[in-house]
Amino acid sequence: MSDTVSVETVASAIDALRDQVPLVQSLTNIVSANFLTNVLLAAGASNAHIDNVHEAGGFAAVAGGVLVNLGTPDDGTAEAFLISAEAARTAGTPWVLDPVGVGGLPWRSGIAVDLLRFHPSAIRGNASEIIALAGLGGDTRGVDSASDSADAVPAALSLLTHADAVSASGPVDYIVGRDGGGDVRGIRVSGGSALLPRVTSTGCSLGGLVAAYLAVTPTALDGLVAAHTHVAVASEIAEENASGPGSFAVAYLDALYTVNADTIRSRARIESFDLPAGVQN
Amino acid sequence: MSDTVSVETVASAIDALRDQVPLVQSLTNIVSANFLTNVLLAAGASNAHIDNVHEAGGFAAVAGGVLVNLGTPDDGTAEAFLISAEAARTAGTPWVLDPVGVGGLPWRSGIAVDLLRFHPSAIRGNASEIIALAGLGGDTRGVDSASDSADAVPAALSLLTHADAVSASGPVDYIVGRDGGGDVRGIRVSGGSALLPRVTSTGCSLGGLVAAYLAVTPTALDGLVAAHTHVAVASEIAEENASGPGSFAVAYLDALYTVNADTIRSRARIESFDLPAGVQN
Amino acid sequence: MSDTVSVETVASAIDALRDQVPLVQSLTNIVSANFLTNVLLAAGASNAHIDNVHEAGGFAAVAGGVLVNLGTPDDGTAEAFLISAEAARTAGTPWVLDPVGVGGLPWRSGIAVDLLRFHPSAIRGNASEIIALAGLGGDTRGVDSASDSADAVPAALSLLTHADAVSASGPVDYIVGRDGGGDVRGIRVSGGSALLPRVTSTGCSLGGLVAAYLAVTPTALDGLVAAHTHVAVASEIAEENASGPGSFAVAYLDALYTVNADTIRSRARIESFDLPAGVQN
Repeated sequence: MSDTVSVETVASAIDALRDQVPLVQSLTNIVSANFLTNVLLAAGASNAHIDNVHEAGGFAAVAGGVLVNLGTPDDGTAEAFLISAEAARTAGTPWVLDPVGVGGLPWRSGIAVDLLRFHPSAIRGNASEIIALAGLGGDTRGVDSASDSADAVPAALSLLTHADAVSASGPVDYIVGRDGGGDVRGIRVSGGSALLPRVTSTGCSLGGLVAAYLAVTPTALDGLVAAHTHVAVASEIAEENASGPGSFAVAYLDALYTVNADTIRSRARIESFDLPAGVQN
Repeated sequence: MSDTVSVETVASAIDALRDQVPLVQSLTNIVSANFLTNVLLAAGASNAHIDNVHEAGGFAAVAGGVLVNLGTPDDGTAEAFLISAEAARTAGTPWVLDPVGVGGLPWRSGIAVDLLRFHPSAIRGNASEIIALAGLGGDTRGVDSASDSADAVPAALSLLTHADAVSASGPVDYIVGRDGGGDVRGIRVSGGSALLPRVTSTGCSLGGLVAAYLAVTPTALDGLVAAHTHVAVASEIAEENASGPGSFAVAYLDALYTVNADTIRSRARIESFDLPAGVQN
Repeated sequence: MSDTVSVETVASAIDALRDQVPLVQSLTNIVSANFLTNVLLAAGASNAHIDNVHEAGGFAAVAGGVLVNLGTPDDGTAEAFLISAEAARTAGTPWVLDPVGVGGLPWRSGIAVDLLRFHPSAIRGNASEIIALAGLGGDTRGVDSASDSADAVPAALSLLTHADAVSASGPVDYIVGRDGGGDVRGIRVSGGSALLPRVTSTGCSLGGLVAAYLAVTPTALDGLVAAHTHVAVASEIAEENASGPGSFAVAYLDALYTVNADTIRSRARIESFDLPAGVQN
């Protein structure tokens, strides 16, 4: 059963997205750049991929939201990540950190730690990335591996010292963050499709969609829940029309486009979950 | 009603494209590189993405046409843009400038001005980019914003001091350039689809298709009209087979492939339009 | 008629691929990065695009297989190619060289020669690239052009001083390499589709699939035959469901996903071919 308040929050957010068509600045990788932009356009937002050191900062100051994705960094884009994050922080532009590959890859792990200084509005990753990032951040709840995104909840909570809200993607997505009243809440989004991990950049493009929703929602928690729900519902619909990962990807873009507030109301599966004892509210 | 002469020009051009399979050198961005190549292959051309400083110039001298697209420049590719443009100019290879993001982004705006020195055969952009580029070029007709690609016609005309032909994309595309007799003409191409702007890189790949057509048409004006018409007709057909932007993109590639001279004759909507008084012929 | 032994080798290899889900490290170009990853995910493998100089070597030591593709190199990625190839060689990770554009483009041709020092497990290219690479490698059988991939067999054989197995893609694919007993064999894989060359990155992604199969097959020859056969069968099925290159690409990803050992048994067309007299066994 869905949490009625959260479903209406998402329904309002998707209406706001279509009304405002927020412009995202993405600094993402060469694998996902095309698909991520198509996801944003299909969902109802707009995207500019500005990742050179000369323009990254200026654009972050005027964009609706910024995505920094660590997928395929080089020295130049890594510098642009820091420039954009700092400019976004200074200008009050919401920004998202997607710590792709953090943990196993030492160079980008250092970049991720540097980026935490600029306080991302939201962090989105898979369970093992969230756990690894929490460990790198000097926190102690990180463990070496995760069988389930639920296992990333303690790490996600510990990252709330660095970010307003954090999500760990998986068959079920776990999201934690402060609500409008300043209380930490945990929200679980179900749905999705087993074909999602068979199409590359579905995770990275979710990060981009989070940046878009952050531009139109009052809290980072709301933005994360809205983006994860939009994706979960669209991918569920897409699977009904797919014969494999190729046709799934096509149907997914179509569904991101056709899903609206009513689809959210009839299909979203959003639930609060209890936080571990001792979480500071 | 279509201009019969222009429709036959396009019909001949599409036949020439399939006969000659011109090889385009593209220097384009990481968002559009894949889709642009698929557009060229589907339409009947060939593409090599050569954007490193070591090989860009040598290849521009032997390619059938060159596309320089400012979508996601870095210091290395920006240098390669200039090398390719100069080599194309020297070798007589037709080349296209797509001034993505020019105007709002100062660094690439400077690159665009530098590129104008090498006299692009054609410039293709959206209305606001064409207007911004005209302003940067030291011309005075630029304005700050455009509600309609028709508003870009004065700017496009002013850019004819730098290029042989210029187009401004929009719901209706406006194209200006010198015809075979040296007279400036204005041509409007209608058609297209409201789903085109919902798929990323449809504009950038049109720029690539212009480079391909330049290799097989007698004037840059003809090349622009042919590429815009091929895209307008194909996207109109694609929309008939689409449920959203995902299926539209697939149907669009199929339609670029199946459109032929007869499809052009039955579907193209090409019209001359009157140029403002005082245009020098 | 198919060579029964080879068909069963491929059937076993596809089962092993789905069981082991090998992780490929790809260093590939900005045109193919997305499609290549989707091909690997659809086929049953996994991919990480790690091409920066800081992480390329460390990852090559732990990956299941490495692809080095020369499609769009710059100074940074070219250095990463050498680092990965050396690390793969040292760690015993199988690696694939895809010499895109070698021959006509001098800078990358030099990179390719440097890479041969690290003894690729397999080389995959089109006929003209294989012939050009053999010429660059100091071998004498290279010729300037090839009308048919069969013409690349002498060049492919000469490259066996640098690699364990070599394939030349074309309407029919020609593969040479040492079998488990150390004897040089020639194997021809038929099938495929005339639409394959109308979709970009089908060749590059085949190179990635070779890297995946190398992780699960006893010899590089087996890995090449398995990857080429998987692609030939999937593209044949895809063509039956395609109206053009757009729908072909979608159906191709679906077919890579659905093809299994039984599909291989019923559809694969694999034959031994006689090697030229004088080939050392």
